[in-house]
Amino acid sequence: MSNSEDKPPNKYVESPATDIPTPAVETGTGFVVAPITRRWRREDMLNRGSLALRGLALLFSLLAFIIMASNKHGDWKNYDKYEEYRYLLAIAMLSTLYTAGQALRHVHELSTGKQMLEKRNSAMVDFFGDQIVAYLLVSSSSSAVPLTNRMREGADNIFTDSSAAAISMGFLAFISLALSALISGYKLSTQSYI
Amino acid sequence: MSNSEDKPPNKYVESPATDIPTPAVETGTGFVVAPITRRWRREDMLNRGSLALRGLALLFSLLAFIIMASNKHGDWKNYDKYEEYRYLLAIAMLSTLYTAGQALRHVHELSTGKQMLEKRNSAMVDFFGDQIVAYLLVSSSSSAVPLTNRMREGADNIFTDSSAAAISMGFLAFISLALSALISGYKLSTQSYI
Repeated sequence: MSNSEDKPPNKYVESPATDIPTPAVETGTGFVVAPITRRWRREDMLNRGSLALRGLALLFSLLAFIIMASNKHGDWKNYDKYEEYRYLLAIAMLSTLYTAGQALRHVHELSTGKQMLEKRNSAMVDFFGDQIVAYLLVSSSSSAVPLTNRMREGADNIFTDSSAAAISMGFLAFISLALSALISGYKLSTQSYI
Repeated sequence: MSNSEDKPPNKYVESPATDIPTPAVETGTGFVVAPITRRWRREDMLNRGSLALRGLALLFSLLAFIIMASNKHGDWKNYDKYEEYRYLLAIAMLSTLYTAGQALRHVHELSTGKQMLEKRNSAMVDFFGDQIVAYLLVSSSSSAVPLTNRMREGADNIFTDSSAAAISMGFLAFISLALSALISGYKLSTQSYI
């Protein structure tokens, strides 16, 4: 780069046409800068989108966890009598911890500008973590559906309603994390070419 | 960089050493060709891998479909009495049709060299199709697990064994399609930069 800046002055000393270089340099810079700023803007948008999706996933899995954990109404109406509900509770807890950790890490990175992990490792952790937790969430939510359906055929009370609410929150958390996994996968694949 | 390569030829014109540029150009070509062939080899490997994974997914979902569809042993031992098993059967059928269609399309494209869809659309269809069918497979397999568990606590017969086998095949098909979705996602993201 230092060479290209050294040479022109030598030429211009020989031919005194000094007003031509200025617009030429400006359009050249425009051509180079436009895709980069576009890319920055896209990456910034993706970062915000992924943070928002993680926030949503955190909210929904926390709700699923709280609703299911408080779903104890005595006798047969205790969530811990059914393995499906215990599974959903465990996965909701895991997903809450995971999304809270990820959201904290990303907020910390955005505010301080420091990376806690190497950039490539961070993208890998994001993608595989999101994808695995999304699979676990969809698995636990769908395993709890048939039992709740069958119970609601017989009785429709606060226990079955709370279970249905927790299952819906599980599905919503799954959708947020599945979209977040899409974004992380996109980031992972573009980072391997930088 | 171009300036530093411009300078030497001026020197060589002054001094008539004409045999030096030829090897320089050849090594230059080597530098350019090596990453491209490496990339071709990697893409070829990915294509074979994705075809193999689709073949496996086809095999496993066909098995899940056949085992579940033939799981009728009279009285309460009929799969169509339980919504979980009907769901698993439906998704296994869908997954069989989808993977068979995809495998046929990819074999046809590999053998004739013609693309049936535009390259970018094809990558999109691959990725979203794989991902969605993988989510459906994990959802249906996990929804059928608790019922089978509960039945096997009471009775252990050919009906519960066949159900367990169909569920395992569903999970195996899910794993194949999840890996295939990974490869399709990688292909999709690299294609957007060509």
